[in-house]
Amino acid sequence: MSSTQSTAGAGQGATHSARLLISCPDGPGIVAAVGNFLVGHDANIVTSAQYSTHPAHGSFFMRVALYLEGLAEDAERRAAFESDFSVLADRFQMTWRISYEGEAKRAYVMASREDHCLADLLWRHRRGELNMDLLGVISNHEDFRTDVEAIGIPYHYVPVTRDTKPVAERRQLEIIDGGADVVVLARYMQILSGDFLRRVGCPVINIHHSFLPAFAGAGPYQRAYERGVKLIGATAHYVTEDLDEGPIIDQDVQRVGHDYSVEDLIRVGRDVERVTLARALRWHLDDRVLVHEGRTIVLM
Amino acid sequence: MSSTQSTAGAGQGATHSARLLISCPDGPGIVAAVGNFLVGHDANIVTSAQYSTHPAHGSFFMRVALYLEGLAEDAERRAAFESDFSVLADRFQMTWRISYEGEAKRAYVMASREDHCLADLLWRHRRGELNMDLLGVISNHEDFRTDVEAIGIPYHYVPVTRDTKPVAERRQLEIIDGGADVVVLARYMQILSGDFLRRVGCPVINIHHSFLPAFAGAGPYQRAYERGVKLIGATAHYVTEDLDEGPIIDQDVQRVGHDYSVEDLIRVGRDVERVTLARALRWHLDDRVLVHEGRTIVLM
Amino acid sequence: MSSTQSTAGAGQGATHSARLLISCPDGPGIVAAVGNFLVGHDANIVTSAQYSTHPAHGSFFMRVALYLEGLAEDAERRAAFESDFSVLADRFQMTWRISYEGEAKRAYVMASREDHCLADLLWRHRRGELNMDLLGVISNHEDFRTDVEAIGIPYHYVPVTRDTKPVAERRQLEIIDGGADVVVLARYMQILSGDFLRRVGCPVINIHHSFLPAFAGAGPYQRAYERGVKLIGATAHYVTEDLDEGPIIDQDVQRVGHDYSVEDLIRVGRDVERVTLARALRWHLDDRVLVHEGRTIVLM
Amino acid sequence: MSSTQSTAGAGQGATHSARLLISCPDGPGIVAAVGNFLVGHDANIVTSAQYSTHPAHGSFFMRVALYLEGLAEDAERRAAFESDFSVLADRFQMTWRISYEGEAKRAYVMASREDHCLADLLWRHRRGELNMDLLGVISNHEDFRTDVEAIGIPYHYVPVTRDTKPVAERRQLEIIDGGADVVVLARYMQILSGDFLRRVGCPVINIHHSFLPAFAGAGPYQRAYERGVKLIGATAHYVTEDLDEGPIIDQDVQRVGHDYSVEDLIRVGRDVERVTLARALRWHLDDRVLVHEGRTIVLM
Repeated sequence: MSSTQSTAGAGQGATHSARLLISCPDGPGIVAAVGNFLVGHDANIVTSAQYSTHPAHGSFFMRVALYLEGLAEDAERRAAFESDFSVLADRFQMTWRISYEGEAKRAYVMASREDHCLADLLWRHRRGELNMDLLGVISNHEDFRTDVEAIGIPYHYVPVTRDTKPVAERRQLEIIDGGADVVVLARYMQILSGDFLRRVGCPVINIHHSFLPAFAGAGPYQRAYERGVKLIGATAHYVTEDLDEGPIIDQDVQRVGHDYSVEDLIRVGRDVERVTLARALRWHLDDRVLVHEGRTIVLM
Repeated sequence: MSSTQSTAGAGQGATHSARLLISCPDGPGIVAAVGNFLVGHDANIVTSAQYSTHPAHGSFFMRVALYLEGLAEDAERRAAFESDFSVLADRFQMTWRISYEGEAKRAYVMASREDHCLADLLWRHRRGELNMDLLGVISNHEDFRTDVEAIGIPYHYVPVTRDTKPVAERRQLEIIDGGADVVVLARYMQILSGDFLRRVGCPVINIHHSFLPAFAGAGPYQRAYERGVKLIGATAHYVTEDLDEGPIIDQDVQRVGHDYSVEDLIRVGRDVERVTLARALRWHLDDRVLVHEGRTIVLM
Repeated sequence: MSSTQSTAGAGQGATHSARLLISCPDGPGIVAAVGNFLVGHDANIVTSAQYSTHPAHGSFFMRVALYLEGLAEDAERRAAFESDFSVLADRFQMTWRISYEGEAKRAYVMASREDHCLADLLWRHRRGELNMDLLGVISNHEDFRTDVEAIGIPYHYVPVTRDTKPVAERRQLEIIDGGADVVVLARYMQILSGDFLRRVGCPVINIHHSFLPAFAGAGPYQRAYERGVKLIGATAHYVTEDLDEGPIIDQDVQRVGHDYSVEDLIRVGRDVERVTLARALRWHLDDRVLVHEGRTIVLM
Repeated sequence: MSSTQSTAGAGQGATHSARLLISCPDGPGIVAAVGNFLVGHDANIVTSAQYSTHPAHGSFFMRVALYLEGLAEDAERRAAFESDFSVLADRFQMTWRISYEGEAKRAYVMASREDHCLADLLWRHRRGELNMDLLGVISNHEDFRTDVEAIGIPYHYVPVTRDTKPVAERRQLEIIDGGADVVVLARYMQILSGDFLRRVGCPVINIHHSFLPAFAGAGPYQRAYERGVKLIGATAHYVTEDLDEGPIIDQDVQRVGHDYSVEDLIRVGRDVERVTLARALRWHLDDRVLVHEGRTIVLM
C-alpha cells in the first residue's frame, strides 16, 4: 500500500533508464525476487512504489524506475533484459510492461470546439512537460487547424453527424491506424462507440466536466447550477463503453457561489478541467496508472 | 450579486445591533429605500450584502447588519422599529426577518452513534463560536449522555425502531415543542418524515457524508470506495421531504487515494463533515442563508 | 463588510452599464445617498458590494454595478452623470472612479523567458476572459516574438543589463507612453525602479512565485525546497518600491512532497502562478480591487 | 522516491505485525536484501515505501510494514528478529528502528490556555484515531484540569514565569522522566530551552499558527492581518533550538478575505491548526516521518 494522493503530480525524481509496471496475485517473495533480479542485472532502483489489496490473498501492483547504464539505448540488451524478466514474471503470474527512457508515448488528441484543454496540452507539449509524441489532433470541426498546424502537428478534420458516426469512426481509426499508445479526449463532444474503443488499440482518456459520479452525461454545468452545488469539479477517467463510468484517474474541484451563472461555472470549470486532464495524462505517460476492478491505482 | 464563496466562514465584522434579512421582487429603489429608512432611524449600516437574480425582473435578497444605540436592549423600540419597517416592507412586497444582537437562536441537536459532529458542535458551543442557545441533544442512543450532561445540556433519549418511528417523532416534537429556531442533524441516522418536518416549526440542517448529488442515500463511503473517486466530500443542507435533495448550504472535499480503505474514507470524512456542518450552521445562525428555487443564497 | 474570499473569481452577473468604485470616510447616509442618486437618475443597481473598516470612524469602500439604458454609449450623458455624481462625491469626501461597459482597460504585459504566465494571459485574452485591450508585450528577450505577433499583438524587445537599466526603463516608458491602465509583470525578471513606477502612470501587477511573505526575493523555489515546505504558493500583488512588499491581491498554494526536486516545484508552481495572476488581473480589470493601508479590498 | 503529498493522512492499510523504518547511504541491493531477509523470516510485506535522494550516492529511506504471525506478541522472537536484522543493518550502515503492532507510543501533551488543539487530540485519542498511550497533559495553567481528568488522563500543572522557567523545565522533565516517545506542544505558548530538548529524550512536535517560514515568532495572526495575506496557515514541525526553524512535518492553509479581523483569523486558524497537528502526529505515531538535512521525509 502506497499513498498517491497528489494534488499536483508527483516529483519527477532522478534519471532512470526504464520503468517496470507490474500486476500479479500477491504472495511472499515478490519484492525480494524483483530486487534480486535487478541486483543480478546491475540495475539500481531509482524509485519504487507498490500497493497490495491484501497481503495474503490480494492483488499486488508495483512500479519500479530503474537505472542501468546503456540499457535504454541498446535494443539487444533491452530484449535480453525483457526475456530474462519474463521468466521471473511467469513465476509470479505477472502482467507487466516496461518503458524505456527516451521512448515517448505516441498520442492523439481529439477535440471539438472548446479549446481550453487542447490549448493547454499543446502548450505543455511544447514546453516538454508531457513525455509524449503528439502524432496529431483529430477534430469534428476546423476551428483549431491554424493553431495546431502552426506548431507542426498534423490536424485531421473528421466531421461527425448522427448518421455519419460509423463512417467517421472508421476514418478516425484509419488515421490512428493502431499507432497510438493513448488517445486523449480534450473535450471531444462525441460519444465513442464500443466498437471504436475495442479497435483503437490503446487506452482513451476523457475529461468530464463534473465531479463524477455527480452529473454524469450531458450538460453538467447547467445541472450543477440548478442543484446549487457549492463546488464544481472535473474528472479525468479512462473511457469505457459505459458513459462516464470508466475508472477515475484524477478529480479536482473549485469553489463557486450562488452568484455564479452557468456561464461563470463554465469559465471557472475550464481551469479545473485543463489542469485535471493534464495531470491524469502525465501520470499515464509516466506509467503510473493501473486499473483494477474499475478503480485506478496511481503509483507515485 | 455578491460573492459568497467562503471556504471558512466570513469575517465577523464590527459590533452591530440587529440583522435584517430581506427577500422581494427586484425593482428600482429598494437599496435607496432601505438606506433612507435606516438614516431616518439614526441607524448605521455596519455591513450590507445583496444579490439579485436579475436586476429588472428577478428576485432581490439583502442582508444588512446595522448599529443603532440601545435598540437591541429595548423591547418597545424594537417593536416600533419593526412596525415602521413593515410599512416599507409592504411597499416592496418584502419577506423579511430581523434578529437582535444578544438574541441567540434556540437549537436542538439530534445525533445517533457517531460523535464527531456532535462533539465538535459541543466544543464550538462552549467556545462561543456559535451564536446559539443549545436547548438539548436528542438521540436514539444513550451513548453520549455523559458527555452532553457534563456540560449542562439536557440529553433526551428517544429510541427509534421501524415500527416506533411515528411514536418517536411525536416524542421528539414534544421535546422541541415548537421552541427551536433550528434543528441540527449531527449524523442522526434516521430519516425524518415529512410530517415531522412540517410540524417542527423551524429549518432542519443535515450533514450528508458525501459530495451531493453524488452518493445520495445510504452507504456513501462504501459507494465512493467502489467507484474509486479521488476526493470524498460532505454536504450540509436543509432537510426537505426528498431525501438528500434539500438546498445545499455548504460542501467541502478532501483528497484520498487508491490505498484508502472504506474505514480510511470514514475517518478522513469525519474531519470534512464536522467542519462543513459547523460552517453551515454558523452561517444559518448569523442569518446569512436564504433559500430560493431549491438553492441557497449565502450573503456574506 | 462583504466577504470576498473567492478561490475562482466571482460570478460575472447580469449586464450592466457602468461600475462605480468609491472610497470615503465612513459615516451615516452614504448608502442611502448613493441609492437615491441612482434612483434619481433612473439607474438600477445590478450588484453592490461594500466594506467598512469601522462603521463609526472607519473608511468605507463600495462597488456598484449599475444599469442605465443608453448611458455607456452616450458621451454627453456620461459626462452629465459624472458631473452630477461629483457633487455627491464631494459631500462625502469620496475618491471614486467610474468605468463603462464596453470600455476595455488598456494593458501592457512584460515578460522575460518564462512563458507560462504570458501564454496563459494570451489565451485568456483571445478567449475573451479578460476585459482588456492588450496594447503590447514588452520583453527583455526575443523568445516570444513569434507567438505574440501571430495573434496580432505588438512585441517590443527592450534588452536590459545592469548598466543599461535606466535606458531600458526610459524606452519602456516611451512604449507605454502613459497609455496604459495596467501593466502586468508576467514573470518579468527585472526589478522596476521607483522612478519607473512613479512615471508609468498606472498600477503594476506582479506575480511572485512564492506564498508571500515567505521567500520574498530571488530563488523562492530553491529556498522552499531547502526549507522543506509542504505547500508551495504564488502571490499576485501590486508593485511598490519595496520589493515583494506591495498589497497582495490574491494567493494560492499547491501541495508538494519531500520527493519533489526544485525542478518539480518550478513545474507545479507554473500552474499556480498562471491561475493566480489571471484571477488577480481579472479582478483588477473588473474594478474590484481597492488598496487601503497596504492591504487590498476585493469587492465581489 | 515515493510521493507523500497527502492532504488527509494516508490510508491505514491491512493488519501488520511490525513497522521497520530505515535510513542508510543508498547503494545497490538494499531493497533486495531487505526483501530476502523478510522472505527468509517468513514475513510478508504489507506495505513498503521508499525514497532516495540520489540512486547512486544519495541517502536511502525505507518504511516497511510487515506481517509475521506471532511476532508482535512474543518477546523472544522479537529479540531474535531484531538481532538477525541488525546484521543486515550493519552491512548497509543502516540507522533503523522497529515498532510492533499493539505497541502504542507513549505521549505527553503540553498546552497553555488555548484548548482547540488539546480538545481535538483528546477526542481523537478517545476515538482511537491516534495510536498513542497518552501519559499526561502538562500545562502552565489550571484551565483544562477538569476536562483532562474527566477522561482519566493525569494533569500536571507546572506554572512558568520568566524567572522560574529553568525550575519549571526541570519539573516537566521529572514528570516525563524519559518515559515518552513523543511530546506534543498543543499550542503550548512557552519556548522550550535547548537544554530541555536535549534532555527530554524524544522528538517534540509543535504546531505553529502560520504558514512557515512566513510569520515565524510571536503574533502570526496579527502580522498576517497587517500584511493582508489571502490565505492563513498552520505548520506542524519538530522542535529544534532554532525557534520555528525545525523540520516541517505538514502544513495547511485556509482562504480568508479583507473583511476578516484578527479575531476572525484566529477563529478560522483554529480549525487549520488542530487538523494539521493531528495529521502530523498521526504520521509520527505510525512511523512515517524521517528527518534528513532539516527536511522531513514522510513515507506513505
